[in-house]
Amino acid sequence: MNGGVNSLDRIFKPRSVAVIGASEDATRISGRPISYLLKGGFKGPIYPINPNRDTVQGLRCYGSIRDLPEVPDVAVLAVAANRTLEAVSDCAGLGVPGAILFAAGFAETGEAGRRAQDEILTAARSADMRLLGPNCLGAFCASQGFFGTFGTSLERGFPTPGPVAVVSQSGAYGQHLTYMAGARGMGVNYCITTGNELDIDVAEALLWLVRQPDVRVIMAYGEGARDGGRLITAFEEALARGKSVIFMKVGSSPVGARAITSHTAALAGSDQVYTDIFRQFGVIRARSTEEQLDIAYACARGIFPQGNSLGIVTVSGGAGVQAADFAHAEGLDVVPLSETGRTRLQEVLSFVSVSNPLDLTGQTVNDEKLLERGLEVLRDENFDAVLAYFSTIPLMRAAAVSLRQLLSDAACGTPDRLMVLSMTADIDVVREFEAAGFLVFEDNRRAIVAISALVRLAESFRASAAAPKIRKASNGSEVNLGKIPLSEASAKRLLSQGGLPILDELLANDAEDAVAAASRLGFPVAMKIVSPDILHKTEIGGVILNVADAEAVRQNFATLLERAKKVPGAQIEGVLVSPMAPRGVETILGTLIDPTFGPLVMFGLGGVLVEVFRDVSFRLAPFDDAEALRMINDTKAAVILAGTRGAGPSDLTALARALSNLSHFAAANARVIDTVDVNPFLVLPEGQGAVALDAVIVPHG
Amino acid sequence: MNGGVNSLDRIFKPRSVAVIGASEDATRISGRPISYLLKGGFKGPIYPINPNRDTVQGLRCYGSIRDLPEVPDVAVLAVAANRTLEAVSDCAGLGVPGAILFAAGFAETGEAGRRAQDEILTAARSADMRLLGPNCLGAFCASQGFFGTFGTSLERGFPTPGPVAVVSQSGAYGQHLTYMAGARGMGVNYCITTGNELDIDVAEALLWLVRQPDVRVIMAYGEGARDGGRLITAFEEALARGKSVIFMKVGSSPVGARAITSHTAALAGSDQVYTDIFRQFGVIRARSTEEQLDIAYACARGIFPQGNSLGIVTVSGGAGVQAADFAHAEGLDVVPLSETGRTRLQEVLSFVSVSNPLDLTGQTVNDEKLLERGLEVLRDENFDAVLAYFSTIPLMRAAAVSLRQLLSDAACGTPDRLMVLSMTADIDVVREFEAAGFLVFEDNRRAIVAISALVRLAESFRASAAAPKIRKASNGSEVNLGKIPLSEASAKRLLSQGGLPILDELLANDAEDAVAAASRLGFPVAMKIVSPDILHKTEIGGVILNVADAEAVRQNFATLLERAKKVPGAQIEGVLVSPMAPRGVETILGTLIDPTFGPLVMFGLGGVLVEVFRDVSFRLAPFDDAEALRMINDTKAAVILAGTRGAGPSDLTALARALSNLSHFAAANARVIDTVDVNPFLVLPEGQGAVALDAVIVPHG
Repeated sequence: MNGGVNSLDRIFKPRSVAVIGASEDATRISGRPISYLLKGGFKGPIYPINPNRDTVQGLRCYGSIRDLPEVPDVAVLAVAANRTLEAVSDCAGLGVPGAILFAAGFAETGEAGRRAQDEILTAARSADMRLLGPNCLGAFCASQGFFGTFGTSLERGFPTPGPVAVVSQSGAYGQHLTYMAGARGMGVNYCITTGNELDIDVAEALLWLVRQPDVRVIMAYGEGARDGGRLITAFEEALARGKSVIFMKVGSSPVGARAITSHTAALAGSDQVYTDIFRQFGVIRARSTEEQLDIAYACARGIFPQGNSLGIVTVSGGAGVQAADFAHAEGLDVVPLSETGRTRLQEVLSFVSVSNPLDLTGQTVNDEKLLERGLEVLRDENFDAVLAYFSTIPLMRAAAVSLRQLLSDAACGTPDRLMVLSMTADIDVVREFEAAGFLVFEDNRRAIVAISALVRLAESFRASAAAPKIRKASNGSEVNLGKIPLSEASAKRLLSQGGLPILDELLANDAEDAVAAASRLGFPVAMKIVSPDILHKTEIGGVILNVADAEAVRQNFATLLERAKKVPGAQIEGVLVSPMAPRGVETILGTLIDPTFGPLVMFGLGGVLVEVFRDVSFRLAPFDDAEALRMINDTKAAVILAGTRGAGPSDLTALARALSNLSHFAAANARVIDTVDVNPFLVLPEGQGAVALDAVIVPHG
Repeated sequence: MNGGVNSLDRIFKPRSVAVIGASEDATRISGRPISYLLKGGFKGPIYPINPNRDTVQGLRCYGSIRDLPEVPDVAVLAVAANRTLEAVSDCAGLGVPGAILFAAGFAETGEAGRRAQDEILTAARSADMRLLGPNCLGAFCASQGFFGTFGTSLERGFPTPGPVAVVSQSGAYGQHLTYMAGARGMGVNYCITTGNELDIDVAEALLWLVRQPDVRVIMAYGEGARDGGRLITAFEEALARGKSVIFMKVGSSPVGARAITSHTAALAGSDQVYTDIFRQFGVIRARSTEEQLDIAYACARGIFPQGNSLGIVTVSGGAGVQAADFAHAEGLDVVPLSETGRTRLQEVLSFVSVSNPLDLTGQTVNDEKLLERGLEVLRDENFDAVLAYFSTIPLMRAAAVSLRQLLSDAACGTPDRLMVLSMTADIDVVREFEAAGFLVFEDNRRAIVAISALVRLAESFRASAAAPKIRKASNGSEVNLGKIPLSEASAKRLLSQGGLPILDELLANDAEDAVAAASRLGFPVAMKIVSPDILHKTEIGGVILNVADAEAVRQNFATLLERAKKVPGAQIEGVLVSPMAPRGVETILGTLIDPTFGPLVMFGLGGVLVEVFRDVSFRLAPFDDAEALRMINDTKAAVILAGTRGAGPSDLTALARALSNLSHFAAANARVIDTVDVNPFLVLPEGQGAVALDAVIVPHG
């Protein structure tokens, strides 16, 4: 990232544009940028460059970029792959700050293409010139009239500037999103497509967009990040600035991942890691294109509910039940009406059952009072959001007009309250409701999903304000690993220094040592062989539990040494004597170095079933106790730890503290430690703490 | 159900209609039916009835139904609740076959309303008259021009007859579905709304629709069935006739269920039972209204892929990866291209990576040959379905026309192959593609979900043809329960007679008996106290494992009798001596009587985690081994039974047989047995069978 993210201003909001290879034919790839710049009303000079013409589309045409009266901010290269290097070199020689490379035929085709694009990068870097592409669809900034793209959907009209931006690795997908957003009535001011990402990638473009004051909502598309740190930086800054990022990350299936490998050079990270990191950094992961658009649409309204309570009012009991089902599935709370609210409603609504969802029945069409009173009461209930279902009633214009008036009156005391309508109407009627401040969806489920995303975003904004996610240096410092490989005892000692609770256990060098240790700890004890060469102790019978007295300790000491011989040449450090473990919930804590994002912490329940249910969660290290709690709550382990079947609650505080301590340990030791496995990590009943019963630390290869 | 389902012909496809309470004002509820019948072109006589008028909307009006020149097929009652009984009685007296009751204010308002509607039912039943409603929006049959409804959406135009039908408990929801289906280009010939279901319910209306030759696809909405058997009958007949039922069942959340209770008198069944029974009987459960419409749209095309292989062709690599992800999640198989196919493609597509998904890149716009060859090769790969993504390209009419031509040419040799397009275009362009035989979606995920539903329906149709789901009498016969309550030994004996494998175990009456038994079985053995009064043996230490020799048997016999005294007055049948259980996967089998559907079988993994993960499946009893296998595969237990972590596969055949035997046992004993719990049911390694280790049978209260 040379020149810093601000160096992208010239490429994405240029004051002047040169189009190299500009064509007279406005329907060709090389003709479209000039045509779009003209029709789109670009505010600065446009310089077509083509040695074979005097004019292009009515503009004076230049033979070479060297002939221009000034150095343009950006050069759009509408030339083939084999002419791209020369054009980039020419620009670099002149000091052009940035270039957009349309040509395909580079890294995506194989090794030769990769070498060719690397040469281009070298030429650009030598002059601090920034590159977008190659193999991309370009970029635009609607408010500037800058359209450095050959996307065909602009033929249908230009985007209206607004708070929404699009950044997409895939050109076609970016164009698709932009078009659909416009059709949905959203103002899209920026679209950036990054293609092969020779220089600028989605992460950097995203960061640039986050910093634009006129951007509030960003729809992003990517198949995997090259540099996870850059992506995290963009996410953190978006959170800090209260901007919404809705990300479509593809490649979650084996076949999807295969298709990515053949499509781009990007490494597809483990899919769940993306899901969890998005969650950690307040990014909404869209599950479909439609969902991405729905949530962006809702975010653009700018009202983020401060809680998850939802009021539902309908003209159909069935739709109300349906909406309540969806709300429950999406984590919203359809709280009952207050006693006051019920009483007030019963005065006018004797014939309907008064509850939340509130079914006003089809009578709403005939009786305005009904709806008026219903809305008044719902407003006074102070729900964080209200969903109102009107089915196809607003298809009748007269009904739509009076409905809009009633809704506006009801909302007027609370303009900051989120009011979402689920209804079917003609597009101009929908636009009128939107102009009055309401969000409009045609499908109950989509409305609920969007509301839920707003609630989650609001939570993330609040959490970020309370404790910025910006990763500080870890609390811990790098440990001295000492002798490698590490035995269980050494691993536990290191983790204990890092703040993980371990049992009070003693390493015995001979049988009498062991007896003394056991006597000090109190019988019965557990005895384990300790050797850096024996990682799977149970397989050789290297763990003996419930050792009852001194004589048994002596016998078992000998037995353990004998069994250790099954691993020829194993170095024996001694025998670990520890108290018998108390009863608790077995969990697994772990750390690993993700190639994209760096040190991660994993949490899950212990036991074989967990693998089958894939019920684990990840977080980027380091993080605090609050994030650790969220991490625990992302798994079903939370249900068990909360207490089930007569078992009381477990010590969540101790578990969360252990996870956050482990995260600092992992971050501080990312250079020296590859993985840590704490298995089992026993969580004791509430107030009694937690304890690591076994641990393995694997240093870097 | 008096008169049988065919008696509904007169109500849903009448030859003559009387409208009681007909109003001159076509905008009022009581005026709309006449207006709609006139505008909709009803083919028979229309008789307005209103004692205060001579004509209504230009038609001769009658003072009473008794004044009509003939007995009409159906009477539409557009009168208030307090005038409904009189009108129904008049109709019944004349022998009118059916009536549609609009009025609200009955069971949905409380006990008085319920009594009022019960009186109405009595009056109707006395004359074998069928009733739709009350508190419903009526019904229509578009091809007859029959519109016995006051739904306002008809103001926007009348439905085009076609293969789709709607049946909905909720009037507003039914109208909403009908309107949206029409807007989507589907022909909807029937809509029936059942309201309070005083007589006709969703199940019976569904069965009637299934039997109409001109209906192929049915969208249903319900909040819970009153009579599960009737619903199952409709489902079975739909399957046998190859008709698609897409059901929106609401009330899955606690709050949703609460809203139902207050909205209608229907009992909401356990939600998962509905999901599983829908699956058993080939009914697609829609997860949103949009999904219900999408799948109905796809079904109406009438092509059901015979397998789950999917070819994907795109103009954007990103969209291809995305589609592959969705396909994987929905159980479709994006199989790699054949070697031949790859070679053929590489001849023309040197610059793209040739695979499935096949990314033809944006070049498709400029180079028709590319798409032509791509489509040819995909056709010859014989995928069960093909998804083609064209993004916004068809927004340009010229591109759309050539695209449609190319697609039609490619499809012309294989008209029965499912070709689904994901693209954005103007509505008239979409209609042209549909007329050419293609399904068109605007969102990749929605397209994939619809394809997946078609594949599942095709599987259900095939399974039904191979072994009709129609429930035959159970294989088994009712058992003689004998002494009640039943001890473990008695329960196992009964289940063993029903075909469940149990260990070869012996009931001992005294210590020497037990020693003899143990010697016969071979040491070590397990010993358990047997008493119908001690159902939770482990709690009192009533199970002793690994009993090694004769002396230990004697000691433990005494110990068990001693421990049994902890349950004062418990009748002791003796001590069960059995071989130690072999190693296997612990599962739970159970049966229960569902209040809606009758005897159900449940299956799940053993262990405490299963409750947390709610990983169980249900099936209506009785069923065969094939259904039992599907039932097992609905749970994650299938993964463990298939073998994980070095463990080999378990005996699925034995497990499936046990489940199907248990289902026949449950069905045969539905009158006498309330629940059966077989826990644990141990599934041994492949070829070694399975065995019930413990069982509890609870007879009806």
